[in-house]
Amino acid sequence: MQKVKVFKIGGNVVDNEPVLDHFIKNFASIEGPKVLIHGGGKIATKISAALGIETQMIEGRRVTDAETVKVVTMVYAGLVNKTIVSKLQANNVNAIGLCGADANVILSHKRHVKTIDYGYVGDVDEVNASFLEDLISKGLNPVLAPITHDKKGLLLNTNADTVASTVAVALSKLCDVELVYCFELPGVMKDINDSNSLISEINEQSYQELKASGIIAAGMIPKMDNCFDAINAGVSSVRICHSDAIHINIGTKLIK
Amino acid sequence: MQKVKVFKIGGNVVDNEPVLDHFIKNFASIEGPKVLIHGGGKIATKISAALGIETQMIEGRRVTDAETVKVVTMVYAGLVNKTIVSKLQANNVNAIGLCGADANVILSHKRHVKTIDYGYVGDVDEVNASFLEDLISKGLNPVLAPITHDKKGLLLNTNADTVASTVAVALSKLCDVELVYCFELPGVMKDINDSNSLISEINEQSYQELKASGIIAAGMIPKMDNCFDAINAGVSSVRICHSDAIHINIGTKLIK
Repeated sequence: MQKVKVFKIGGNVVDNEPVLDHFIKNFASIEGPKVLIHGGGKIATKISAALGIETQMIEGRRVTDAETVKVVTMVYAGLVNKTIVSKLQANNVNAIGLCGADANVILSHKRHVKTIDYGYVGDVDEVNASFLEDLISKGLNPVLAPITHDKKGLLLNTNADTVASTVAVALSKLCDVELVYCFELPGVMKDINDSNSLISEINEQSYQELKASGIIAAGMIPKMDNCFDAINAGVSSVRICHSDAIHINIGTKLIK
Repeated sequence: MQKVKVFKIGGNVVDNEPVLDHFIKNFASIEGPKVLIHGGGKIATKISAALGIETQMIEGRRVTDAETVKVVTMVYAGLVNKTIVSKLQANNVNAIGLCGADANVILSHKRHVKTIDYGYVGDVDEVNASFLEDLISKGLNPVLAPITHDKKGLLLNTNADTVASTVAVALSKLCDVELVYCFELPGVMKDINDSNSLISEINEQSYQELKASGIIAAGMIPKMDNCFDAINAGVSSVRICHSDAIHINIGTKLIK
């Protein structure tokens, strides 16, 4: 099976040009097929503010009204996606930027309202992995913005961590997939203020213990859940690491 | 040779949702391989204004400073491109939205300054027609935003009429290409106020006469030049028609 590496970067990388450029150089240096999924929430918040649109977050998730979905489409699928693609092309990576509507790559549905109405937010139903694999086999590197669609004309804001794990799982039916989440820390830390407290390996059991003890809390929980969902559904390995360490095998490795 | 139809729509179609939806329905009804190139200048001007960025036009062309190239990237490659793609997908057209940086589809260079500095504006050097033809042969329909790149990390605002003719010419080496420019009039008119004054056919000689008599003037001249460039470089036929008439063979036909 062809090996494919799937990387995810978030707003802290995307919104900081020197950090992004450093990431791009490292990404370009990695051999073999690779896919990049990006967020861009911090830039979307800035542009929303400049346009006089108030950003509403509930439990760390953006409430996406009709005006906000236009902003995130502009920012994620336009500005951020094409900036990354052009930087990768300048580093001889044959990147192709897509959102979920393109070639029907990621089909979703508008989230059903339970207690909170998040608005134009998508929950993923299906990934067109064979199209992505076809691009990869031609030497292209898909760069995916977290905007999906319902094939009924709606564009939907979709959590980029979830897009990364869902795409990795779908690709794992056709390829041997390694999933790497990049952020601003060296990995999962016992003590966020102690750079020597990196946890190098976490399994399902130690994850439950780390949650019970409060070491893994808040926004890290859905991220970790995405990681374990990926491993349990066929992804070969998942790693959480600093965005400047993607080319070296360090960080927190998640195992079954 | 495979037949491919290349359509171009501008700001007057893109910025008017009922007109765009009508165009999309007609586009979806057309059989066979097809490519769509779009502008979006009117929306870019509105978003620029909302962001407090002044739009400067010289001879009908946008001066694209560092902030403006971000806006046009957001608007053309993000909002407009993905809105069109999701509407096409909803009409069972397997659209894939790309800008020139994606898969290095349209390589350009920043325009050299002669008398006027247009800023981050691209002049096209090369179109990756074989990649577009590969997508087309798989039943995909490329939807191209007029943002190109120089493969050195610059995204460049590029005239959409020129992108359309350049892409049509590049594809004509591999396919039998029909190019259709859509706008808000039935075609080239002898008298813009007389709907019965449509000129059904123009050749190089009558074009010179129409220019000399002032019937074809101002912004129509570069558009017509693009059309004749395309015909003279291998495109089989060029038509200028109303955006609601793409599925019927009317408008102004340009012949050698």
